[in-house]
Amino acid sequence: MSAHTDARFDAKVYGQRLERAVEFMRAAHLDALLITPGPDLRYLIGSAAESFERLTCLVIPADGATPSVIIPKLELASLDDSAAGELGLRIVDWVDGVDPYQLVRSTLHAGSRIAVADAMPALHLIPLAESTTGLPASATPVLRQARMIKDEAEIEALRRAGAAIDRVHARMGEFLRPGRTEAEVGADITAAILEEGHTEAAFVIVGSGPNGADPHHGMSNRVIEQGDVVVIDIGGPVEPGYYSDSTRTYVLGTPSPEIVEKLAVLEAAQAAAVAAVRPGVTAESIDAAARTVLADAGLADAFIHRTGHGIGLSVHEEPYIVAGNDLVLEPGMAFSIEPGIYFRGEWGARIEDIVVVTEDGVESMNNRPHGLTVL
Amino acid sequence: MSAHTDARFDAKVYGQRLERAVEFMRAAHLDALLITPGPDLRYLIGSAAESFERLTCLVIPADGATPSVIIPKLELASLDDSAAGELGLRIVDWVDGVDPYQLVRSTLHAGSRIAVADAMPALHLIPLAESTTGLPASATPVLRQARMIKDEAEIEALRRAGAAIDRVHARMGEFLRPGRTEAEVGADITAAILEEGHTEAAFVIVGSGPNGADPHHGMSNRVIEQGDVVVIDIGGPVEPGYYSDSTRTYVLGTPSPEIVEKLAVLEAAQAAAVAAVRPGVTAESIDAAARTVLADAGLADAFIHRTGHGIGLSVHEEPYIVAGNDLVLEPGMAFSIEPGIYFRGEWGARIEDIVVVTEDGVESMNNRPHGLTVL
Repeated sequence: MSAHTDARFDAKVYGQRLERAVEFMRAAHLDALLITPGPDLRYLIGSAAESFERLTCLVIPADGATPSVIIPKLELASLDDSAAGELGLRIVDWVDGVDPYQLVRSTLHAGSRIAVADAMPALHLIPLAESTTGLPASATPVLRQARMIKDEAEIEALRRAGAAIDRVHARMGEFLRPGRTEAEVGADITAAILEEGHTEAAFVIVGSGPNGADPHHGMSNRVIEQGDVVVIDIGGPVEPGYYSDSTRTYVLGTPSPEIVEKLAVLEAAQAAAVAAVRPGVTAESIDAAARTVLADAGLADAFIHRTGHGIGLSVHEEPYIVAGNDLVLEPGMAFSIEPGIYFRGEWGARIEDIVVVTEDGVESMNNRPHGLTVL
Repeated sequence: MSAHTDARFDAKVYGQRLERAVEFMRAAHLDALLITPGPDLRYLIGSAAESFERLTCLVIPADGATPSVIIPKLELASLDDSAAGELGLRIVDWVDGVDPYQLVRSTLHAGSRIAVADAMPALHLIPLAESTTGLPASATPVLRQARMIKDEAEIEALRRAGAAIDRVHARMGEFLRPGRTEAEVGADITAAILEEGHTEAAFVIVGSGPNGADPHHGMSNRVIEQGDVVVIDIGGPVEPGYYSDSTRTYVLGTPSPEIVEKLAVLEAAQAAAVAAVRPGVTAESIDAAARTVLADAGLADAFIHRTGHGIGLSVHEEPYIVAGNDLVLEPGMAFSIEPGIYFRGEWGARIEDIVVVTEDGVESMNNRPHGLTVL
């Protein structure tokens, strides 16, 4: 699915990103970047083209020559919404019977050191490597810094995404009732995610009762019961491709004192991590802020994953908010803060906001109440 | 999204598939297959695990040793629905801080010749290649023959998928009306795809008026007008992961004689290609059967893509129904037959069924009327 309006920023934004990529590429002693469809392609030229069995590949030379887009003739129209035309990129279309990997090779100097998008599938990477210079490097070190620091237009897109997913959470009482299966609730949530302005429901987790104890549970045919604690973790992209991702924990009926108490600790842990965010502190210090609150309450072992992940054109990207990551936070970084507690076979809970580092602190993209919501 | 019931076949089906993969691997002089999440993983062990930034990888040694699954501890539960437990696979879980690529290497003999799933992203392929034996081969030649020939249970899944998408097409009059945008119609279709039993709406093309002339158009904010010809190409997976994919062409109001005439030719071309399907003929002969009918009516230049693609656990897989493919059709092969005609800037049309080769002919998974449907 794709919508063809508001699908990208002004072309000059992409021109600047391409220039910056060339600078980073030179600093990394690379000769060319090969970018197949995925978040890097959308970042660099605003194209939401998808990856199919036929090769589409943006080639960016470090020598300042005009970048090329190798693309199946059949899929030429997918560039109409991108900035490729306004940027004057060289378009090289091909039809079945032509070897597209040789077309890529023809754009490169002999012995070029190349790097490829992390999303490039083996389907294309193997023949490209065979046609060019062997095993390539990853383009991520070249694009990491630029993609990690969001500009104001990107932050505004994340705000719109956050507000859209907040509206879905606000409607949860319409969907989540005892006697319905997780899958039935999930189908309604999926429709609501689209209705509230996302172009796709990228993930819908409805973890009821014991299923809530699996952080990566999707949804099942389990019938939701009165008294269940239910983890709802949902999100999707809004144009031009920026993701929402927000989790709230609900309970159907009156919760036990134990559940109320543990949820209060989780809420405090999540709030402590958000409050710790500002320029100059490390990613791991945010993880520690959440973890300390849970540990102090004897819940260290119940928190079995990292505190968060970066977000933007990908649902998961850098920076990762995890022990061992001493990356220093800068204004414009966007990531989730989502501590959880999990009791295998019993229940689980998680609270998640997307936040952006500001000049002097933090701004949350999600603003629904954080505590246990009783339905 | 995933539903956790009926998500796979009986474990012995996967045991046989693994044995067959080992046989093919030995014939290809390979020492191990490395399979990350995607259709190959689902085919081999029934796991619908998704690919994240943390490595999950099935390692199948050719020497008959027990296959291993390298998997983040956090995602262990994603194996619960697979056949990994019943098959007695070796599970090697890892936590942040461990190098999962070295875990893969530890399962391999020195100098192993390895092949990887086509879906493996560069994110994992590059460090795996660096940790093991350099640029790997593609696993597709090893798995192609087995995946291409569907057994009765797989065909039954394709029948259920076909019937589900037929029910969505049957409801098109509810959704497709003048004055609505393609995106509004598409959101309703998306909901209907889920309501009718798919676990996901994998693609929704609503190509109205001139947008119908782009075979890969998704949907836009164009307002659909009285008189428009509209191409609706939709599909998604049903458990255990098999895809539907069907296109019909609609017109809002009375079509012109020219449109009626050209659609009749397209309908005849699609029917001719379906009628040509039987064991022993080549894939390219099916493409030629459709193309000849269109060429005889002067529409050769309007048909700008191949006639079809294989389908199963992937939306696009082998066999491809295209000129130059002399693959001989066998019972159990499943593919689309989807000729189209495209008049850039004006309108387009396409008719698509999924068909399966039987012992003596063909069975269609889609059974809605094929001609222009007037709404």
